[in-house]
Amino acid sequence: MGLFTKDIKTMNDLFVHQLQDIYYAEQQLVKALPKMAEKATEPQLKQGFLTHLDETRTHVKRLEQVFQMHGVAVKAIDCPAIDGIIEEANETVGEVADKAVLDAALINAAQAAEHYEIARYGSLVAWARQLGRTDCASVLQKTLDEEKATDKKLTALAESRVNLRAAS
Amino acid sequence: MGLFTKDIKTMNDLFVHQLQDIYYAEQQLVKALPKMAEKATEPQLKQGFLTHLDETRTHVKRLEQVFQMHGVAVKAIDCPAIDGIIEEANETVGEVADKAVLDAALINAAQAAEHYEIARYGSLVAWARQLGRTDCASVLQKTLDEEKATDKKLTALAESRVNLRAAS
Repeated sequence: MGLFTKDIKTMNDLFVHQLQDIYYAEQQLVKALPKMAEKATEPQLKQGFLTHLDETRTHVKRLEQVFQMHGVAVKAIDCPAIDGIIEEANETVGEVADKAVLDAALINAAQAAEHYEIARYGSLVAWARQLGRTDCASVLQKTLDEEKATDKKLTALAESRVNLRAAS
Repeated sequence: MGLFTKDIKTMNDLFVHQLQDIYYAEQQLVKALPKMAEKATEPQLKQGFLTHLDETRTHVKRLEQVFQMHGVAVKAIDCPAIDGIIEEANETVGEVADKAVLDAALINAAQAAEHYEIARYGSLVAWARQLGRTDCASVLQKTLDEEKATDKKLTALAESRVNLRAAS
């Protein structure tokens, strides 16, 4: 990216830029999720983070597949949004003394990351279709569906157990 | 927040911490939305940003109401997540040369902010209910509903006009 040039000239450029951004974000989440699993105390939550870590590794591979299908180099660019989300998660989680409250804070942190990804993959799927790349859209849709499912699982877990325990 | 102390001891502390965080985030969005409206070229998108600016000002007021209902001081704390989302929006939008592509990038940026808020207000509503503050939950739910409605409007606008124009 040039500081004094406008490098995104077409919808295709925007699509590739966003692929590079989410590729970085997924890699950061592969690093963050094991730490979140380690901190979680509720066994279902701990397992949920580990399951999502496996899924996230698959998301990284799927992005590499989309780069290749689309004929562009696999590349990550800095993504200040995910850095900020992870920084905020670390700050908040680091402030929590009580274990049950910690689980609630961890779920909240994970849901911020999930929603970031839902927004980004939502755009990527729409853009891929507009560009006539239904093959790429279909691969990206799989990840979008998994992010949405993870978000729902986290909400269910929060409402059924963690928040009740934390507020008691 | 102390660097060497764990200041969040109860679910109530976490609730207040998150209120302070989203209060900062909403204030940053009040600053960012007029700039997004200015950059948007599609009239419906421009108007959409201005309408959401009005809503966002109401969200700030509702948070002040919740602080008061809950008997705590109105206070904002830094929110690295929204700072990152806005920084990324500025970086990406600043790179776009074509006007139609710019609109697609602006929608994508706005949806990242909407999803951040959906995640945070979702937790806040759930936590308020768990804490027995159905009065606060009901005020926060109004904002959550508006954020979700804005996200849907942005998707509809992207799919119906902006992406088609950008990819043509």
